[in-house]
Amino acid sequence: MNQPQTAITPTRAEDFPEWYQQVVKAADLAENSDVRGCMVIKPWGYGLWENMQRGLDGMFKATGHKNAYFPLFIPLSYLAKEAEHVEGFAKECAVVTHHRLESDGRGGLRPAPAAELTEPLVVRPTSETIIGATYAKWVQSYRDLPILINQWANVVRWELRPRLFLRTAEFLWQEGHTAHESEAEAREETQQMLGVYETFARDWLALPVFTGEKSESERFPGAVQTLCIEAMVQDRKAIQAGTSHFLGQNFAKASGIQFLSRENKQEFAWTTSWGVSTRMIGTVIMAHGDDDGVILPPRVAPAQIVILPVAPKPETRDAVFSAVKNLAAELRSQNYAGEPIRVEVDARDIGGGQKSWEWIKKGVPIRVELGPRDLEKGSVAVARRDRGPKEKEFLPTGDFVARAASILGDIQQTLLSRATAYRDANTVKIDTKDEFYAFFTAKNAAKPEIHGGFALAHWNGSREAEAKIKDDLKVTIRCIPFDAPEEDGKCIVTGEPSRRRVIWGKSY
Amino acid sequence: MNQPQTAITPTRAEDFPEWYQQVVKAADLAENSDVRGCMVIKPWGYGLWENMQRGLDGMFKATGHKNAYFPLFIPLSYLAKEAEHVEGFAKECAVVTHHRLESDGRGGLRPAPAAELTEPLVVRPTSETIIGATYAKWVQSYRDLPILINQWANVVRWELRPRLFLRTAEFLWQEGHTAHESEAEAREETQQMLGVYETFARDWLALPVFTGEKSESERFPGAVQTLCIEAMVQDRKAIQAGTSHFLGQNFAKASGIQFLSRENKQEFAWTTSWGVSTRMIGTVIMAHGDDDGVILPPRVAPAQIVILPVAPKPETRDAVFSAVKNLAAELRSQNYAGEPIRVEVDARDIGGGQKSWEWIKKGVPIRVELGPRDLEKGSVAVARRDRGPKEKEFLPTGDFVARAASILGDIQQTLLSRATAYRDANTVKIDTKDEFYAFFTAKNAAKPEIHGGFALAHWNGSREAEAKIKDDLKVTIRCIPFDAPEEDGKCIVTGEPSRRRVIWGKSY
Repeated sequence: MNQPQTAITPTRAEDFPEWYQQVVKAADLAENSDVRGCMVIKPWGYGLWENMQRGLDGMFKATGHKNAYFPLFIPLSYLAKEAEHVEGFAKECAVVTHHRLESDGRGGLRPAPAAELTEPLVVRPTSETIIGATYAKWVQSYRDLPILINQWANVVRWELRPRLFLRTAEFLWQEGHTAHESEAEAREETQQMLGVYETFARDWLALPVFTGEKSESERFPGAVQTLCIEAMVQDRKAIQAGTSHFLGQNFAKASGIQFLSRENKQEFAWTTSWGVSTRMIGTVIMAHGDDDGVILPPRVAPAQIVILPVAPKPETRDAVFSAVKNLAAELRSQNYAGEPIRVEVDARDIGGGQKSWEWIKKGVPIRVELGPRDLEKGSVAVARRDRGPKEKEFLPTGDFVARAASILGDIQQTLLSRATAYRDANTVKIDTKDEFYAFFTAKNAAKPEIHGGFALAHWNGSREAEAKIKDDLKVTIRCIPFDAPEEDGKCIVTGEPSRRRVIWGKSY
Repeated sequence: MNQPQTAITPTRAEDFPEWYQQVVKAADLAENSDVRGCMVIKPWGYGLWENMQRGLDGMFKATGHKNAYFPLFIPLSYLAKEAEHVEGFAKECAVVTHHRLESDGRGGLRPAPAAELTEPLVVRPTSETIIGATYAKWVQSYRDLPILINQWANVVRWELRPRLFLRTAEFLWQEGHTAHESEAEAREETQQMLGVYETFARDWLALPVFTGEKSESERFPGAVQTLCIEAMVQDRKAIQAGTSHFLGQNFAKASGIQFLSRENKQEFAWTTSWGVSTRMIGTVIMAHGDDDGVILPPRVAPAQIVILPVAPKPETRDAVFSAVKNLAAELRSQNYAGEPIRVEVDARDIGGGQKSWEWIKKGVPIRVELGPRDLEKGSVAVARRDRGPKEKEFLPTGDFVARAASILGDIQQTLLSRATAYRDANTVKIDTKDEFYAFFTAKNAAKPEIHGGFALAHWNGSREAEAKIKDDLKVTIRCIPFDAPEEDGKCIVTGEPSRRRVIWGKSY
């Protein structure tokens, strides 16, 4: 086979944004649809999402939440109820104005003028307002609280510069919406769900994340406090991979979620909301992929092991395929991380090299080749996606079956360790403005290059300082970390005294 | 407790449509939202849907299908591509015409005139056209076929007279879309998926269904053949609970799904589509419920067993709650139908009578009471939802745990047997027009009453005969059954010779 040096062109170092597009395409994860900004999530990409859903859903249920479903449409007037909220979302909504089509008399269709809605409907960009209106009906007394509900849904935010998974007009997500008796309980819920996201990112996606609070200017419109998990990907930019909002009584007041308290007083509930989306898929791709394609963490890979039968001669075909079938069944009877191992057999009648490279690009954690000679020896050739594409280990079949789960666990751990090392190597303390500006400026202006990272630097807490850095460098505060030690320092922008470093970075 | 004779007012016999509304409300399954025609599916209702999804999804995957996701929006021009299709759906769509909102200058919002879309977008009423356009890009050669994909999604069809679960503007469903090399293969797929629906309805929902083909006038717009499963509910009306369409090459031609065949010719693919929706929830409620509320088939019940601790005195509270906790854990370690038994503990501090009635109305299959006296005796009081509300059996705790799965299986079987007996008792052969008209006419015109059923009667195959019966009686052909024996007869309407009986009924 005349393989290029890398399966993906360009490489990450050559052109990271273009590498991303090519990797998504080569792995058959998703593609742009004919509808501007809306993507088609292909089976391999959707399988990944299904596994993420299952993992998260289990964690939501284990923390006492139940799923429900609320309307796709929000009456226009609802969005206007919470002043900050409308500011933040009003600009980018799909608006339904008619409920019927009619012939346009030229073989086409048009919205029927007679079927114009009295009040336009907005396709939900997020559901605080419509869910709030519902909770207002459900809640009468403190006995009706807490409400702990999650929704899996599609949402729409018009995007002028869409990018698959990271920023699309329609995307899939979950949005948790809870209502509580007390501020303390709501704050605890906000923290708890951030913890769920952090754990999920680490244990399922092999993503180390920084957790903390957003600055005021990066907060969710209408929230009192926005907590987030921030991941670093391989162009050293940040991706906000999940957020958990403490909404105070803002939305309860806007929607009228009131209850008779234990002290027999009418009070407004305290609410939270929290969400992660298909953006997580983009994060996984950018964090773990290499120049040969995607590398999927075993816990979320749609297939964890692919078996590639090698049967060039007709006379060995039956024996090989029968052995492959048995091997698949044996592997499926093993558990990894509490679930039966997911095995795919690629029996397509195409060249072995092409087949193997397709699976490398798709990022399947383990590839197993089984041919007539392996059969004779009672062994299989095992290749791990976290190692070089040509690297194979020959293992007795029984040994491989017995060790498969632990190899998957080892790959999962390797991805987490690598991503952690990468992030830590690119997270630096910076104390001077010059150093800060140098850190976030590409050395070669003619050609985009990977530079920067996370800067831990002091900030005086002002919006103005943030705005200056954003204007000058497109750098923002990713989060104010929870666990930052108190220390004396000077704001990177103003030189004013500061007691804590915050995390700065360029972001998606 | 001063309980009324039945927990639900009115009873089924008194006013079936109103009974349905009251049952849905009493079971906390769903409610109407502020958005006309759109429902809020509450946790108990959504839990039911999640279990249905899991069951169906497993069957789809076992038959070689994978899930994917396609855009919510369809360009207006796509709908116009397939002539019959547009006729069937054009009248009832939500149309997006703007992509931005702006202040209306009076504290409210309005669609921004500058952000009017060049081509309006339709919120998908079904996805044949947008998925067809995608498949056209994926398919080049016969090697790219078959495509076997399913999508779980929300769809919108504007409804002027919505009814929870049965007919709502937005509903949740799955839509399978497959493309094949040959007509035979596509026809086989259409049949196979109908078989999946039939099996699912019987084994999971305890619903016996008739299977067959729709007459031309009831066919899916654009399909060559529509197959369906038809269930009878307790007002003896039919509910079409699932459909599987053989689309011939109609949509392939409209979308341009072409491939180079094994004979090296350009050919159009043969496609199918098939779907079931949240309407199935309505069907389950209407088929199995009684005058005390919903009765859920154990295989899809969100909780299969509820444990109700009885602890009136503070001094026994700890012992009872600890025993309840142990019992729940033991039950959860048992499997029913291949899954751990789903157990809920209702520890709320409200009266035992009220609590018990709430769970009766919700339709949980088994209620278990455990109080201080039960603890002393080492027994529990077990009540089954398929028996009278006061009927209890006292079982030694260990016996109950060991038998729980088989009791659930027995309840599942009882529901299927009852529904089958009801349907069979109300399915009659009718050979004269007078008898047919009498069968479908209420005896008491002043008060709606339960009447009719499924009539097996001859039909000459003409649209005109069908139309007359529909106009006169609101009765339609539910399906032309596959397994109807050939026999000589006369069309119920025209008296013309016919070789086969078809199934007639009033329907939702």
